[in-house]
Amino acid sequence: MPNSTERERERELSMENGGSAAARWRFEGNERLILAGGVTVRGVLNTVIGNLDGNDTRPVIPLGHGDPSAFPSFRTSPFAEDAVCSAVRSTKFNGYSSTVGIPAARSAVAEYLSKDLPYKLSPDDVFLTIGCTQALEAVVTVLARPGANLLLPRPGFPYYEARAGFCSLEFRHFDLLPEQDWEVDLASVEALADENTVAMVIINPGNPCGNVFKYEHLKKVAETARKLGILVISDEVYDHLTFGSNPFVPMGVFASIAPILTLGSISKRWIVPGWRLGWLVTNDPDGILTKQGIVDSIKGFLNISADPATFMQGAVPQILENTPSDFFQKIVSTLRETADICYERSKEIPCITCPSRPEGSMFAMVKLNLSLLEGIEDDMDFCCKLAKEESVILLPGFAVGLKNWLRVTFAIEPSSLDDGFLRIKAFHQRHAKKQ
Amino acid sequence: MPNSTERERERELSMENGGSAAARWRFEGNERLILAGGVTVRGVLNTVIGNLDGNDTRPVIPLGHGDPSAFPSFRTSPFAEDAVCSAVRSTKFNGYSSTVGIPAARSAVAEYLSKDLPYKLSPDDVFLTIGCTQALEAVVTVLARPGANLLLPRPGFPYYEARAGFCSLEFRHFDLLPEQDWEVDLASVEALADENTVAMVIINPGNPCGNVFKYEHLKKVAETARKLGILVISDEVYDHLTFGSNPFVPMGVFASIAPILTLGSISKRWIVPGWRLGWLVTNDPDGILTKQGIVDSIKGFLNISADPATFMQGAVPQILENTPSDFFQKIVSTLRETADICYERSKEIPCITCPSRPEGSMFAMVKLNLSLLEGIEDDMDFCCKLAKEESVILLPGFAVGLKNWLRVTFAIEPSSLDDGFLRIKAFHQRHAKKQ
Repeated sequence: MPNSTERERERELSMENGGSAAARWRFEGNERLILAGGVTVRGVLNTVIGNLDGNDTRPVIPLGHGDPSAFPSFRTSPFAEDAVCSAVRSTKFNGYSSTVGIPAARSAVAEYLSKDLPYKLSPDDVFLTIGCTQALEAVVTVLARPGANLLLPRPGFPYYEARAGFCSLEFRHFDLLPEQDWEVDLASVEALADENTVAMVIINPGNPCGNVFKYEHLKKVAETARKLGILVISDEVYDHLTFGSNPFVPMGVFASIAPILTLGSISKRWIVPGWRLGWLVTNDPDGILTKQGIVDSIKGFLNISADPATFMQGAVPQILENTPSDFFQKIVSTLRETADICYERSKEIPCITCPSRPEGSMFAMVKLNLSLLEGIEDDMDFCCKLAKEESVILLPGFAVGLKNWLRVTFAIEPSSLDDGFLRIKAFHQRHAKKQ
Repeated sequence: MPNSTERERERELSMENGGSAAARWRFEGNERLILAGGVTVRGVLNTVIGNLDGNDTRPVIPLGHGDPSAFPSFRTSPFAEDAVCSAVRSTKFNGYSSTVGIPAARSAVAEYLSKDLPYKLSPDDVFLTIGCTQALEAVVTVLARPGANLLLPRPGFPYYEARAGFCSLEFRHFDLLPEQDWEVDLASVEALADENTVAMVIINPGNPCGNVFKYEHLKKVAETARKLGILVISDEVYDHLTFGSNPFVPMGVFASIAPILTLGSISKRWIVPGWRLGWLVTNDPDGILTKQGIVDSIKGFLNISADPATFMQGAVPQILENTPSDFFQKIVSTLRETADICYERSKEIPCITCPSRPEGSMFAMVKLNLSLLEGIEDDMDFCCKLAKEESVILLPGFAVGLKNWLRVTFAIEPSSLDDGFLRIKAFHQRHAKKQ
């Protein structure tokens, strides 16, 4: 955006086509939006991708973003495709939906999530959203009021920071502890919170850490939230993508301790992030979220926002109920295989360390040891040079809150992942500091 | 939302399950969101619908909202359904799209819209959105800055007011003139504007008025905008749904006079509002929107917002290029027929007057003459009692900015529309003031 002197000059120079008066344009862009666009994973990845060498004939190995839908091993279930096509052809779902979602889809999501809970969700607890993204937008917008603050994990998913920044909702970071399987540093949560803290976010299974929180730890999170009088936003977009010793436990299990807002979607478990169907769920057996006005605010937000495609909503009952379990088993077993490749292969590369074997989601965080390398300034420099020299895309850790770490997405074809690590190894060898 | 004393009491009463400390919840809802939800067409219609008499066995005649997708005469083209299903099954569109839209879809929309323009749009001028709704959200959010104001038509589409209110963007209303085919009162536009005015909105073909602006009038709108230094937001979601003497002229034709942001979608022309695919287009041959930072702000907004389903984007080229023209002809001819029924039938009901035959979109505004009725307080009272007694849904004019008018949606099966007007006539007779 030009500064105001430049704009003034521009106005003076801009003569009307065939007219005599100079037009002076009174509208201008919104700095807050321009800045908000710069801190997303996609923004950082685009910069990294910009370093690819067009002369490298090898395939690009994309270990940067969590979208394996293009790989044959991660193709979605044909049952899910059938459900969408039959909804499209039914002619029943061409019109607008209600702003909270169509009743059949709300019921189906309530049923689906209740299987893992000690109580039954009502369809009214479920709000359908445009992927988990809009669920996150809704929650952050609902909680934004002057002076309030939100506690976010570090490392985390920077979309929370971007949205909070846009809504002028202050955020503060608590740490996830790499030496403790990336558990929440609950002491730092308590130290950060004050009377204006309204909520804390956890992401389970973890993005970017690939961890899965234990039952006992989640219970402590709920107790901390209760003590602080805050709600827990539990981002469970990677729910059920677990392949280690800890099973997935929904945070909603602890909703009688503190109210929980659960965010989820079909994007990750069904490998269809582009289908844009998610949910925001109130886990609130004691009705606290209703009493505090959160539920009405969510409805208000949805009343003035776009909705997920109605036929996608129409397909939800079929998708949730009819996808055969062997589809899920195959995906989880592929992820287990690739998580292992990621963990084992990273041991062969001296400049990176993975603190623990990933047990969930599609990611691992590995620590970069720059002192072993020559001519590499930081994580971003590492990723840009790696892209240029080896056509491998990684996400620099600063983008998720941990400078000089790297986020590795292992959700790709196993053979490509192997190839990717061989290339990273070659890159290391080329840049290793001479002894 | 409870007031603060109630909340305090609630906190004191709320004892932990099995614990001893009373939880004091620090989070609360967002009044601005709760209020924003109350002024939408859907909100008002829900109140009207709440008056339906469950004992009335006749079918409800929905003349309240602009979504005819449920009626056989308005079924979308099977070619469009095929395009979506083939995109779903292709496996190419399961992943995330870029935030501005996939290139093939941007190109297709640019081609499609360029047919009616004296210059060629570039794919980079097109931003894909979640229906026209998100295009509107984007534009209002981009323009919102402290002190700025936006000029909106009265009557209009209240979603603009709701979104502007939510973004704290001041809005001012200029009149559309019923006695001049609902043209913009350009004198009132000039009188309202000041140095903080950034843009004006027009909706063409008109919602709620059913008018279609003439070429010469649109040119004057552009000249006024240039004189005031503001941009024109042209909501063309009903583009090509015209059936009178004025052809549809896109505002982009006048983009060399003043920069235009065009909003559109496939929702109305293809009768698929639930498919949620729209666009925001910069008509800006002189690059003013880029220079003023508007384009970067739009990109920033889209970077932190949800996207339309990727397979819907994948289907766009097929939908735009392959839908046979007889589909459009049939829809337009049905609308012409129902617009005529609406105009002619309303003449038979003394308490309503339609100032001119509708020539576009799906709506007509009719003026209510309360002095001819007994026991009807206003437009809302008329609509609620009509719903209760005759199972006919109309939108009270106050919801679109004109108190004691009514918005009639004529886009339904012709026979149902006839039936609806007969019922309104019966209602009139029952409530007519005794001479």
